[in-house]
Amino acid sequence: MQDLKDLTHKFEELQGQVCKIIEQSDGTGKFSKENWKKDIGYGVTRVISQGDKIEKGAINFSKVSGPLSKKMSHVLGVQAKNFSATGLSSIFHGKNPFLPSIHMNVRYFNTDNGLEWFGGCMDLTPIYINMETSGNFHKRLKETCDKYHNSFYPEFKRWADDYFFLPHRNETRGIGGIFFDRQNPGEKINFEQWIHFITDLAELYPRLYSDIMKKNAHKPYNERNIFWQQIRWSRYVEFNLLYDRGTRFGIESGGNTESILISLPPRVKWEYNYMPEKGSDEEKTQKHLKKDIDWINLEND
Amino acid sequence: MQDLKDLTHKFEELQGQVCKIIEQSDGTGKFSKENWKKDIGYGVTRVISQGDKIEKGAINFSKVSGPLSKKMSHVLGVQAKNFSATGLSSIFHGKNPFLPSIHMNVRYFNTDNGLEWFGGCMDLTPIYINMETSGNFHKRLKETCDKYHNSFYPEFKRWADDYFFLPHRNETRGIGGIFFDRQNPGEKINFEQWIHFITDLAELYPRLYSDIMKKNAHKPYNERNIFWQQIRWSRYVEFNLLYDRGTRFGIESGGNTESILISLPPRVKWEYNYMPEKGSDEEKTQKHLKKDIDWINLEND
Repeated sequence: MQDLKDLTHKFEELQGQVCKIIEQSDGTGKFSKENWKKDIGYGVTRVISQGDKIEKGAINFSKVSGPLSKKMSHVLGVQAKNFSATGLSSIFHGKNPFLPSIHMNVRYFNTDNGLEWFGGCMDLTPIYINMETSGNFHKRLKETCDKYHNSFYPEFKRWADDYFFLPHRNETRGIGGIFFDRQNPGEKINFEQWIHFITDLAELYPRLYSDIMKKNAHKPYNERNIFWQQIRWSRYVEFNLLYDRGTRFGIESGGNTESILISLPPRVKWEYNYMPEKGSDEEKTQKHLKKDIDWINLEND
Repeated sequence: MQDLKDLTHKFEELQGQVCKIIEQSDGTGKFSKENWKKDIGYGVTRVISQGDKIEKGAINFSKVSGPLSKKMSHVLGVQAKNFSATGLSSIFHGKNPFLPSIHMNVRYFNTDNGLEWFGGCMDLTPIYINMETSGNFHKRLKETCDKYHNSFYPEFKRWADDYFFLPHRNETRGIGGIFFDRQNPGEKINFEQWIHFITDLAELYPRLYSDIMKKNAHKPYNERNIFWQQIRWSRYVEFNLLYDRGTRFGIESGGNTESILISLPPRVKWEYNYMPEKGSDEEKTQKHLKKDIDWINLEND
């Protein structure tokens, strides 16, 4: 399929672009590059660690295809002999507690009996929620969504709120963003428009994070901020290991453990019954870990 | 049921004993005590943190009963109207990287249509595996098991190897110990003997850990040991959140999050593709994270 070949090239190109922009913004960090090839497909894993601003991060490209296993068929609720999937998946954790963690992926899936889906997401997990940064993040996501379909932002924003949620703590992972899955080309927009949309997202991603780095990476911080960073990151771990479908599916289907768990934050703390002090910045953040916040129109408080 | 009332008293008594012995061995740490009571039952949560030798630990008692929900019925594979369950569950994480994490639980479950089970476990997760300590740990477990039935140690040791295992890393959580579930009184030993067996285990537990504290809590350590401690603890987190049935069942059934996740270690690190240096103590430990090691008869190496 010519389209799929073009798309995988596009993804590889975007992967290189993200690395270039992030390296420039970080200043000293460099991405490693590891090509892998297995029976099921191939990919490129690019990891950055101990940069000047980014403590840990990665952007992975993969293209896999083959017979649809019984387990995959069950998990996906799809009947088909063969499938192809290609995607780009990325995460960055900052060193400075005033840098949020950011996460993005875009993916395309099809089967030999004609099913095809696009999926993706981009979401932000601040250690300290800043209203302006949060509003701007959502505004720029909305602008990109609105170029393609006016249902996208409201629908995908709600989806992110529901997906990036920790029921056992009754809190969201961060301020959300957008999440979409199983989107059939031709329904709301056509195949080419989908390619443009996810390309736009992958291009927006490093720019958004670079702007945040520029603004926040040099803010002074103290032990208390570092402690809170590690508490917040423990919730990130809880989400990824308990609920994230990609992580669980990868682990259970025997994927590459280190590539899958690269998403986990570098340093984490669990403290029994920890509660932020009343009136503190930590408590303010905690209070905003809720679904259905209209970040774009939220009054600064 | 008189037996169950006696058993819950026994468990509460054992909880107090464990706290007393551990406090004495730690020297400065004190257990907090929190009684809880809900529709479903009651319990006592006792937590120790930032002691002289123990960084984080807990021993929880609970007694719950009520209608068996559809979900529980499905998970347990049991048909009954009502159930009762009581148990004691504990974990300790040391400060010094030469102190292992230790974990124990004992439990009893019954239904109103006559089903009853005992279950329990005790296992050790060293940061650095010491052959003598490991051999002694298993030897003392075997001695306790052998008092009741000669099938117990070999059967429950194998069960622990299989249970405390991380398939995605092809490694055990630590050096194992014993694990048993769904043991019907009357099959191998009777109800009273089961009570004696699990009482013996709960009494052995703090003594075993106190002996290890005495031996190891004052060993000097460096940054490298601390780093490795946090890497090993990240595997502990992966096990508990991805595989541990108690943790997942507790989280999914809406149990008390902080009481369930008290099991997670205090400080954790994830580093991409970390591998211990060849010939190092870390590598030696890594190589021994395998099933089916006969710790009791292992030659010192």
